Amino acid sequence: MSLSVALIGATGYTGLEVAKLLSVHPQARLTIATARADAGQPIASVHPSLVGRVDLVLEELDADKIASRCDVAMCCLPHGASAETVRGLCAAGVRVIDFSADFRLSSLDVYEHWYKVKHPWPERVGQTVYGLPEFFADEIAKADLVANPGCYPTSAILPLAPLAKAGLIETDDIIVDSKSGVSGAGRGLKLGTLYCETNESIAAYAVGSHRHGPEIDDLVGRIGGIDPQVIFTPHLTPMSRGILSTIYVRPKSDDVVGAVKQVTQCWRDCYGEQPFVNVVDHLPATAHVAGTNYVQMAARASGKRIVLLSAIDNLAKGASGAAIQNMNVMFGIDQQVGLN
Amino acid sequence: MSLSVALIGATGYTGLEVAKLLSVHPQARLTIATARADAGQPIASVHPSLVGRVDLVLEELDADKIASRCDVAMCCLPHGASAETVRGLCAAGVRVIDFSADFRLSSLDVYEHWYKVKHPWPERVGQTVYGLPEFFADEIAKADLVANPGCYPTSAILPLAPLAKAGLIETDDIIVDSKSGVSGAGRGLKLGTLYCETNESIAAYAVGSHRHGPEIDDLVGRIGGIDPQVIFTPHLTPMSRGILSTIYVRPKSDDVVGAVKQVTQCWRDCYGEQPFVNVVDHLPATAHVAGTNYVQMAARASGKRIVLLSAIDNLAKGASGAAIQNMNVMFGIDQQVGLN
Amino acid sequence: MSLSVALIGATGYTGLEVAKLLSVHPQARLTIATARADAGQPIASVHPSLVGRVDLVLEELDADKIASRCDVAMCCLPHGASAETVRGLCAAGVRVIDFSADFRLSSLDVYEHWYKVKHPWPERVGQTVYGLPEFFADEIAKADLVANPGCYPTSAILPLAPLAKAGLIETDDIIVDSKSGVSGAGRGLKLGTLYCETNESIAAYAVGSHRHGPEIDDLVGRIGGIDPQVIFTPHLTPMSRGILSTIYVRPKSDDVVGAVKQVTQCWRDCYGEQPFVNVVDHLPATAHVAGTNYVQMAARASGKRIVLLSAIDNLAKGASGAAIQNMNVMFGIDQQVGLN
Amino acid sequence: MSLSVALIGATGYTGLEVAKLLSVHPQARLTIATARADAGQPIASVHPSLVGRVDLVLEELDADKIASRCDVAMCCLPHGASAETVRGLCAAGVRVIDFSADFRLSSLDVYEHWYKVKHPWPERVGQTVYGLPEFFADEIAKADLVANPGCYPTSAILPLAPLAKAGLIETDDIIVDSKSGVSGAGRGLKLGTLYCETNESIAAYAVGSHRHGPEIDDLVGRIGGIDPQVIFTPHLTPMSRGILSTIYVRPKSDDVVGAVKQVTQCWRDCYGEQPFVNVVDHLPATAHVAGTNYVQMAARASGKRIVLLSAIDNLAKGASGAAIQNMNVMFGIDQQVGLN
Repeated sequence: MSLSVALIGATGYTGLEVAKLLSVHPQARLTIATARADAGQPIASVHPSLVGRVDLVLEELDADKIASRCDVAMCCLPHGASAETVRGLCAAGVRVIDFSADFRLSSLDVYEHWYKVKHPWPERVGQTVYGLPEFFADEIAKADLVANPGCYPTSAILPLAPLAKAGLIETDDIIVDSKSGVSGAGRGLKLGTLYCETNESIAAYAVGSHRHGPEIDDLVGRIGGIDPQVIFTPHLTPMSRGILSTIYVRPKSDDVVGAVKQVTQCWRDCYGEQPFVNVVDHLPATAHVAGTNYVQMAARASGKRIVLLSAIDNLAKGASGAAIQNMNVMFGIDQQVGLN
Repeated sequence: MSLSVALIGATGYTGLEVAKLLSVHPQARLTIATARADAGQPIASVHPSLVGRVDLVLEELDADKIASRCDVAMCCLPHGASAETVRGLCAAGVRVIDFSADFRLSSLDVYEHWYKVKHPWPERVGQTVYGLPEFFADEIAKADLVANPGCYPTSAILPLAPLAKAGLIETDDIIVDSKSGVSGAGRGLKLGTLYCETNESIAAYAVGSHRHGPEIDDLVGRIGGIDPQVIFTPHLTPMSRGILSTIYVRPKSDDVVGAVKQVTQCWRDCYGEQPFVNVVDHLPATAHVAGTNYVQMAARASGKRIVLLSAIDNLAKGASGAAIQNMNVMFGIDQQVGLN
Repeated sequence: MSLSVALIGATGYTGLEVAKLLSVHPQARLTIATARADAGQPIASVHPSLVGRVDLVLEELDADKIASRCDVAMCCLPHGASAETVRGLCAAGVRVIDFSADFRLSSLDVYEHWYKVKHPWPERVGQTVYGLPEFFADEIAKADLVANPGCYPTSAILPLAPLAKAGLIETDDIIVDSKSGVSGAGRGLKLGTLYCETNESIAAYAVGSHRHGPEIDDLVGRIGGIDPQVIFTPHLTPMSRGILSTIYVRPKSDDVVGAVKQVTQCWRDCYGEQPFVNVVDHLPATAHVAGTNYVQMAARASGKRIVLLSAIDNLAKGASGAAIQNMNVMFGIDQQVGLN
Repeated sequence: MSLSVALIGATGYTGLEVAKLLSVHPQARLTIATARADAGQPIASVHPSLVGRVDLVLEELDADKIASRCDVAMCCLPHGASAETVRGLCAAGVRVIDFSADFRLSSLDVYEHWYKVKHPWPERVGQTVYGLPEFFADEIAKADLVANPGCYPTSAILPLAPLAKAGLIETDDIIVDSKSGVSGAGRGLKLGTLYCETNESIAAYAVGSHRHGPEIDDLVGRIGGIDPQVIFTPHLTPMSRGILSTIYVRPKSDDVVGAVKQVTQCWRDCYGEQPFVNVVDHLPATAHVAGTNYVQMAARASGKRIVLLSAIDNLAKGASGAAIQNMNVMFGIDQQVGLN
């Protein structure tokens, strides 16, 4: 079997990563790559690292053409615009993995409050599987549309959700302090992502107002069967790739050291069979998972809190790697194919 | 007036920074610089950035010589070793600014518990002024010995202490998540500070066990008249200089947005006359204070918490700049001289 | 004396650096800062590192106002636009230091060939002093208009010109391989200067076609009294600041090792009294001069060539520091004031 | 077929890279990894990025054990020490790919002059194939011992050798100005590779005296059938990985622009069938080949010279990727297996 894959919005960093990953995937190949502004140009002229690796010319988006030639589409468009496009692709019969936030949340109200747009396909909000195969593999396997998770949420949900579900932690004052590489901000031209603005500098942004906050709340709540209150602070860190989340939770038990052991055991029970989640003894660093689909997680006692640490590559497990993983699940391919 | 200054332990990054700052100070000059291993060599051969700026030969430490020639000594030795040396300098009549942690804490027990050494001069523990002129200028002015603050503590005490003192925040579950540039780890040869180990990587270290935790507790408690419980997590960040601390506090008031305004007003009241503390509207970035003795602080509401953000240069306000500021206060020089 | 200085085009990196340098200059102060798009805003809102250091509101450019209130204007506009503005300022009686290339070259033809614009004030081309005080201090002292040197040319002219003048080197096949930090590319929004495009990457650009090539030719020729042929290749290097130029010359003598000694002696003779040029024994690194107006230069034998190495900070000696140095010379202030 | 591979000296960066590459190679697996100091520890505790990817315990070196269990050994030891070990492995019947310089050069005298050691196995100097499959694939296929090329030489030989062979360039004044990421300096503890020493800094090192100079001379000469004089200058660049070489050659033809076309055509003729060498239109950047075994090369006219630009990943095509490529050739596997 060789899947034929369309990539919608190929000029950004997630698009580039999808193209690279597909170029080494033994059971899938990129056959259509679209880009509005650069249609007609070779993809390798937009991404010079694809020279000799991907030999495609960028096209305008044509849903029918994709439907007739592709098994699956990966849609890397901004929110709002994405839902519109995804709707058309689904209508044309293409299975879709959507990188935007348009179908991730359970509630239309929450979506429209945080994203400030009228949703173009409201019926599917709350009716679309969240693309975290560690929890939703069965639904992903059958899905016509998968909402690929946000990068920060992936780094927070994976450590938090099993603990919430197991009742090991209080869920009313969870603090998620996340540090992301600059690629998370995209390839658009913004003063804040110029080299000289970000190099040698770390800063928080969108404190108390980042859209990934409600996504973490929603999924930790959905998986854990609770209603958590997460305080989420993202930081722009002077590196290209990677997210480290430092998460402060209060254990239900007063024995914090014992609770750390329970946390570790809970993780091992939950993720023992999962190929990409590694519970580690050392303190995870983003470099340890750079360029891979792996997650590294560890826990430590600190005063009356447990500190959970998780590291991912924001472009891999936080975006394009997760999409390949989802594609594998959707088409009955082993999750690790093309990703190890 | 021109102060004559001795620098003890000149080969590290804080020593280099002291040498640079003194080279442009109009009322002080570096006259003796010591280094055990490199004695006999020009300081500029150890620090090539001092060529044409500082023309001194490194010497062995000689307390009597320093006493006869210098008004003040800056001691950049490791803890334990420092106290020993400082004792000798004080005995010889030299006023000393000590960069180590040996005289910062109130309690000998806490010191010996965390630093795992027998203190060489226990009488002075709890009897030495903490070198934060924003709070202790009067005592610093008269001191024979000043304990120069730790870098992380400076970034946490300045935002926290006035709020604790004013009773605006709960003090039992304060979370300090700090991100430091690599120079904070010193110039010693360690695998963890090699370029390829730290570049493109962020990681926490010493979670729940870093020695600056009790220092923050101690000083916030001392200034605020309370007994706080601070959870402190340091992170190694891929940049040379700077510390950003993201601090999560619960306001006493339920009106978090109103409490943020109170926080800002409290800071302005406390620091309005202080030359180096700036309460800012934007979110501070370490680059905004790089190479300066300034602190930038801001506050934001996030759920039921207030997030305090503070940025300093770890080698300037976090170490050598603070030492110059202390020296100015000790000798009746305007705080800003040589530092703006 | 306190000079009143106007800064034209204050929102870029060179403008920021001028503002910082003037904020610590004991004999000059920034009184007017202009910016087209951001007029009406505090300069510290555009450059958050100026909070607490520079308290000015950006204005529209008004040559008469500048003439009535300022002794000197520093013009940080792009070429072409700059000449137009400079002409107006000079007409209004303001002495000007121009950061653009508009008045640097000897020949109008060369200018119009390389810069592809009609020069707005052609009479001054070839009739304006080049702002390198190491060679032209007397003319700078009397000038109404100074052409502040290009960053790359400064790093190449200083090592090459005295050798050319002394007849120590062949001048027909000089190779200048320069590596610059990203700030040299300015603060405009360009894909190529996004963090993720430049981080972890080095590349040449404008090979055989960079406009600083003819500037190096022109000045080395003018100072050396020869007609050199310089091959110049700039590289974008993953760092914010600094230029290292590696320059390959053939000595006239067959004794390359002996010629290296002659080179070093020639430099010492030429620059012995110059406060900012340091001939060093070690191999210069850009970090050694970061944030300073210093140049470090060294020479080594390699086969039949001599390799000259020079390091500067592109924003300091390569732009804004040089401008302050020029200002000092223009107004009879010691060159080092505000710069050491 | 699945080759069993031994990795000798597994704790450095090249060893790590070999381990990563083998972990995804479909026809080879790492079965023995040795390390003197860390024997007995899991390899993933030395390299935390191998958690979940490579599950081996480091061992002491035992040539007989390797001979009985492995098809091939990759030897990542320092020069001198390597030859000693390689001799033992070869004697035990293991085919070896040696990462050191011990068997790369044609001449024992040149080796002993530059490496300042008595060679432990002098008979094989000049009698060992140089592991550049683009030129020596037939010999590599049959070899018991392959000398894996140096990183800088790879970046210089690939662009230069075909031009020398085709007689397109003068070979008496070739200048190779190379910029390498810090991983090239290894994982040993050295002041010069600390983060704060290399970050934000570029500098040349070993000017006129780097050991890769004679290696470039030797191979360009051997392949081109000439006796070239190459001036080689390496630079330490603030990035982890990558080498860019900027190479200045004089064409035999006076028509430089025409000669650039000949150069490009010569390269296409030489490398058209080679899977890893890409002649590109854009100017190569190290980021374009990061993490891959590809080379990107381009040529430009500049005055009377042609500037050749080549970019590789120093740890991939410059070391461990090349070793995998050599292994593939040695065992009749397609060159690209495990490398694309």
